[in-house]
Amino acid sequence: MNKNIDFYFDIISPYAFIAYKNITKIDNIEFNFKPILLGGLHNLVNITAPAFNKFKLKNMKNDCELICKKNKINFTWNSKFPINSLYLMRGYLVIEESKKKDYLETFFNAYWQNDVDLTLEKNIIKLLENLSINHEEFLKNISKQETKDKLKTFTNEAFKKEIFGAPTFVANNKIFWGQDRLDYALDELKK
Amino acid sequence: MNKNIDFYFDIISPYAFIAYKNITKIDNIEFNFKPILLGGLHNLVNITAPAFNKFKLKNMKNDCELICKKNKINFTWNSKFPINSLYLMRGYLVIEESKKKDYLETFFNAYWQNDVDLTLEKNIIKLLENLSINHEEFLKNISKQETKDKLKTFTNEAFKKEIFGAPTFVANNKIFWGQDRLDYALDELKK
Repeated sequence: MNKNIDFYFDIISPYAFIAYKNITKIDNIEFNFKPILLGGLHNLVNITAPAFNKFKLKNMKNDCELICKKNKINFTWNSKFPINSLYLMRGYLVIEESKKKDYLETFFNAYWQNDVDLTLEKNIIKLLENLSINHEEFLKNISKQETKDKLKTFTNEAFKKEIFGAPTFVANNKIFWGQDRLDYALDELKK
Repeated sequence: MNKNIDFYFDIISPYAFIAYKNITKIDNIEFNFKPILLGGLHNLVNITAPAFNKFKLKNMKNDCELICKKNKINFTWNSKFPINSLYLMRGYLVIEESKKKDYLETFFNAYWQNDVDLTLEKNIIKLLENLSINHEEFLKNISKQETKDKLKTFTNEAFKKEIFGAPTFVANNKIFWGQDRLDYALDELKK
């Protein structure tokens, strides 16, 4: 029995944030973190993100606030939502393995708990400094063609598996889309 | 305290079917049934239904089957999905009040449990006969301009409340979208 779940995420998604918070409470399952560019994936599958429909956007804000209240997750809607998450997600790829966990925690919290404006380089630099990540090296590395290609490859790989949104859980090669479906992915592992 | 929940639905939606089955198990809350034409509402809010995106469609089928299994709801994906639900929803408006409950039960079950092809008039006629509804009168009434206008008005009224999908629950004037959010609507009434 495979006790692993693949977790496809983009820091830009509030539902990915909620899913992330929920999976960090689970200690008997290994989650493989699969960074993707959600905007890129949406283009590949021809889906308009809820962020770009005013009715869905308004609902998403209310919905996330309700879910977080029910799940006791500290949450603040980011006043700069949506932003381009390209640099954040490329950043996840270029930092050393041992820092990836703290990087996610830092940037997910900055964006979805502390209303940090992540379009400002100075804010990103400050967060990187807290993580003892050299920001000059970071900024140089995220601009490299190989980094751009890597994130594209990861996003394309998700697309090939017929993943069309985030968060998505994959358990036993089965796709479970949405933070609401974490329980279903966990159920799948019990089979 | 208002112990009422408005339930916006279209028989075409498998998630509306699931929500319908779940609310029929609740007996201490009054649900006001609000028929809408989901396709018409989607046009008003500029949303492409998941039925028209192959990735979302495939996921919806799997997802509904999983939810129904977990909720012990008898469910079969309709092999003629999607169809135009105009006649079914107009039909709900033209039948007498005392038959609306059985009409919904019959047509929801026919479409989402028994894989009935509801594009065939003979199948609709048979179901109406089971309900002792005169099908000639039914067919005449659903073609009337006032019936067409009535369904449009109901759909427009949902739109004016910023409802953008189905099922939607409205409790204390707050919108809860999706069968997953029934609990949230019930929580709202406890406030």
